[in-house]
Amino acid sequence: MAESLTWVNSLTTTLFNSFLDQTLPLLATAGTEVAPAAHSVKVDEAIVVAGVLLSLVVIYLASKIGGEICARINLPPVLGDLVGGVIIGVSVLKLVVFPEGGEDASSSVLMNLLQRTTSLEPEALAATFAAQSEVIAILAELGVIILLFEIGLESELKELIKYGPQAAVVAVVGVVLPFGAGTLGLISLFHVATIPAIFAGAALTATSIGITAKVLAEIGRLGDKEGQIIIGAAVLDDILGIIVLAVVASLVKTGEVEITNIAYLIVSAGAFLIGVIILGRFLSPYYVAFVKELKTRGPLLITALIIAFVLSYVGAAIRLEAILGAFAAGLVLGETETQQELEEQVVPLADFFVPIFFVVVGAKTNLGVLNPAIPSNREGLIIAAFLIVVAIIGKVLAGFAVFGQPGINRLAIGIGMIPRGEVGLVFAGVGVASGALSPSLEAAIIMMVILTTFVAPPLLRVAFKDPLPETESAGSAPK
Amino acid sequence: MAESLTWVNSLTTTLFNSFLDQTLPLLATAGTEVAPAAHSVKVDEAIVVAGVLLSLVVIYLASKIGGEICARINLPPVLGDLVGGVIIGVSVLKLVVFPEGGEDASSSVLMNLLQRTTSLEPEALAATFAAQSEVIAILAELGVIILLFEIGLESELKELIKYGPQAAVVAVVGVVLPFGAGTLGLISLFHVATIPAIFAGAALTATSIGITAKVLAEIGRLGDKEGQIIIGAAVLDDILGIIVLAVVASLVKTGEVEITNIAYLIVSAGAFLIGVIILGRFLSPYYVAFVKELKTRGPLLITALIIAFVLSYVGAAIRLEAILGAFAAGLVLGETETQQELEEQVVPLADFFVPIFFVVVGAKTNLGVLNPAIPSNREGLIIAAFLIVVAIIGKVLAGFAVFGQPGINRLAIGIGMIPRGEVGLVFAGVGVASGALSPSLEAAIIMMVILTTFVAPPLLRVAFKDPLPETESAGSAPK
Repeated sequence: MAESLTWVNSLTTTLFNSFLDQTLPLLATAGTEVAPAAHSVKVDEAIVVAGVLLSLVVIYLASKIGGEICARINLPPVLGDLVGGVIIGVSVLKLVVFPEGGEDASSSVLMNLLQRTTSLEPEALAATFAAQSEVIAILAELGVIILLFEIGLESELKELIKYGPQAAVVAVVGVVLPFGAGTLGLISLFHVATIPAIFAGAALTATSIGITAKVLAEIGRLGDKEGQIIIGAAVLDDILGIIVLAVVASLVKTGEVEITNIAYLIVSAGAFLIGVIILGRFLSPYYVAFVKELKTRGPLLITALIIAFVLSYVGAAIRLEAILGAFAAGLVLGETETQQELEEQVVPLADFFVPIFFVVVGAKTNLGVLNPAIPSNREGLIIAAFLIVVAIIGKVLAGFAVFGQPGINRLAIGIGMIPRGEVGLVFAGVGVASGALSPSLEAAIIMMVILTTFVAPPLLRVAFKDPLPETESAGSAPK
Repeated sequence: MAESLTWVNSLTTTLFNSFLDQTLPLLATAGTEVAPAAHSVKVDEAIVVAGVLLSLVVIYLASKIGGEICARINLPPVLGDLVGGVIIGVSVLKLVVFPEGGEDASSSVLMNLLQRTTSLEPEALAATFAAQSEVIAILAELGVIILLFEIGLESELKELIKYGPQAAVVAVVGVVLPFGAGTLGLISLFHVATIPAIFAGAALTATSIGITAKVLAEIGRLGDKEGQIIIGAAVLDDILGIIVLAVVASLVKTGEVEITNIAYLIVSAGAFLIGVIILGRFLSPYYVAFVKELKTRGPLLITALIIAFVLSYVGAAIRLEAILGAFAAGLVLGETETQQELEEQVVPLADFFVPIFFVVVGAKTNLGVLNPAIPSNREGLIIAAFLIVVAIIGKVLAGFAVFGQPGINRLAIGIGMIPRGEVGLVFAGVGVASGALSPSLEAAIIMMVILTTFVAPPLLRVAFKDPLPETESAGSAPK
């Protein structure tokens, strides 16, 4: 259990703790000469670069091998990224591990290789490990930001608005049902105390837009009305999730709900998305004219990324999420005449960054919590089974809440909302940090997140029934 | 002088020193409760991401504004990257600064903004600053690796081999002349001791292939025979530079030259480059056939990057440079039928990464060492003037050593070899770490590096006389 505990902890704390924990003994032995000892921990940037290169090679190999196998057995390639990540990660080969996962440098196969092949000194090992892990983690975050930017570019603002009411219903039902059923079920069936039950219920609400959007793009369904409803609902779900998290966190901390905080989040999210879209409409003709005047390399791509990164930053700064800003930027730029050219240029960038995100999600996933041979896992496994059922049924029912659209594939919409991905883990992380969650409940939440994330891609493909011809699933995202 | 000292130091040491220096007082005040205090330094990954996004926005703005201005006054856009970097860096605005530059988080304007706009806690400031700086520094390193990969793709192996003898002469003369003249001049004219004089002479030898190749690509001269001789000579120069550095370093350390070490470097460099080319020829048909079988996104780009990163890693691991491996990978893949498609896909990636490298080079450049108002700079300024003259004349004469090519632009070749860039700084860094360099000599080397780096791009453009029409210099690198 300790293993899973540190893993979740890591979501809110950081790799520097581990770095410090490892260097502290070194400082202690140095006695009075603390400063020189600290000074001797040198990180050679060239070695960090070598470590990052090795990590990227392993990540890309895992992504390509996993993806190609999945593509051949008619599963979504993104599942291959996740499974490939699990295999190279903390659960199996330990090639790509993170200090925050409770691993130290000596357990990283890759760091051992690095130490044998470079002039890396033993005392610099921990710091080098921390530095290269930090870089890979941030590259993964840039990956999900660029993915959402690409999804935004490919989404039709008009369609999103058109199906807005349906998306809103799916999002709200998909939050209320799992939250209510999960919380009440835990209290009545498993006699869990109210606060942890609310936390676990809250973790059931969020949808990982990344996984679903990637699968939709892979099977060429992003442009369908089902796809647009799922994307719209997932975006709203993300905002609702942030609000639920804020409510639950303040409930745990102060015992009451801070209305002003909640109001701030709702107003800022709404103002941000609507503001960006209106401002974007107004400014985009000037932007297009401006880009045409530029004479240096990458005029379109770099200016578009400036916009995307500014909005991502604003999204993060107003306590929403960076990916919401990236999505909004993509949505606005996707409405301009430069859309097609921009999409073509974003594809190689997404090819570079996005696999890092999904493989790292897999690599950080500790399948140890699923091992029934470990006695302490068993209670968690039973609760997990309950949470998984609620998580899946709650979202599937949300899909059936779509109204006024005869003939629409409601099942596919519901399934599209199933994966909890990294969003669910954030809930678990906050819960652990607040001390509200017992180890078994925490493990159960992690299991629920793993299962829903891994089960959704193949289910989604089945729900859309007719697999596309090979050429389309082989190519890049639909254009 | 202390400022420039720490700056150069940073090349071989690291930001973690600074990180530790900043956290140590915190640990000290914690008394017996060292561990909990260390534990309280939390780095929120979302805030690091926000910091990286902000840095990238500032870097791209500096690159675009600087580049566009340079393009309009007929200077190479890469000079705009460098100058833009200087303006946002440690010398002027301090928007993008690095802990290794002796700056702490409180002097970073960007970190102050981050602290005001996010929930960043004061005690996590230093660690967050260190983490985001590390990420930007590594992104810059990936930038020069991808740049050399792109240059390799655009280079013709046949042409490089054809002009190999000329390139070798340019490289050897361009190493021997500045080294001899610099070392002897310092000893006879400035009464510098032998060891530091040898170090300074060695710092005069290396050529920064990045700057020159970028300018050549910008003015569409990479494919000319002059361009190919420059690239070939710069690659050889890089290898010669590594060998010179090894000789000088072992001379300083043990007082004698370790022949085995030097022999190892020469043999491994030769075996690596020749081995990659022969192996690449043999394997590339299988590679092309393999890529055609892949069904997931980015089959060509990602497999090519796997090859490039593996070779970069091997290049770094055998104590050569990562960029040599990337260049070799580009050279080999550029010979396959996939070259054009691959080049098109690498362009957006290069557009993303390469400006980060050049802007960071500028941002790390401390123009303070050039200020004659500071008395301690004056001695350095005089020595610097001497070094700059030797650095420029030595390389220009090397260009005139080209034989058997009537009508070739020898001046342009010589000028192409002038920029010392980051390679010269590595020499200065090793020199400072070994204790051989006096502060004024060290400052003089830095000034030489700055001047040669900034003066070469416009001179190179003049030397090639006929500026290309706007459309070509505006577009991407020549195809």
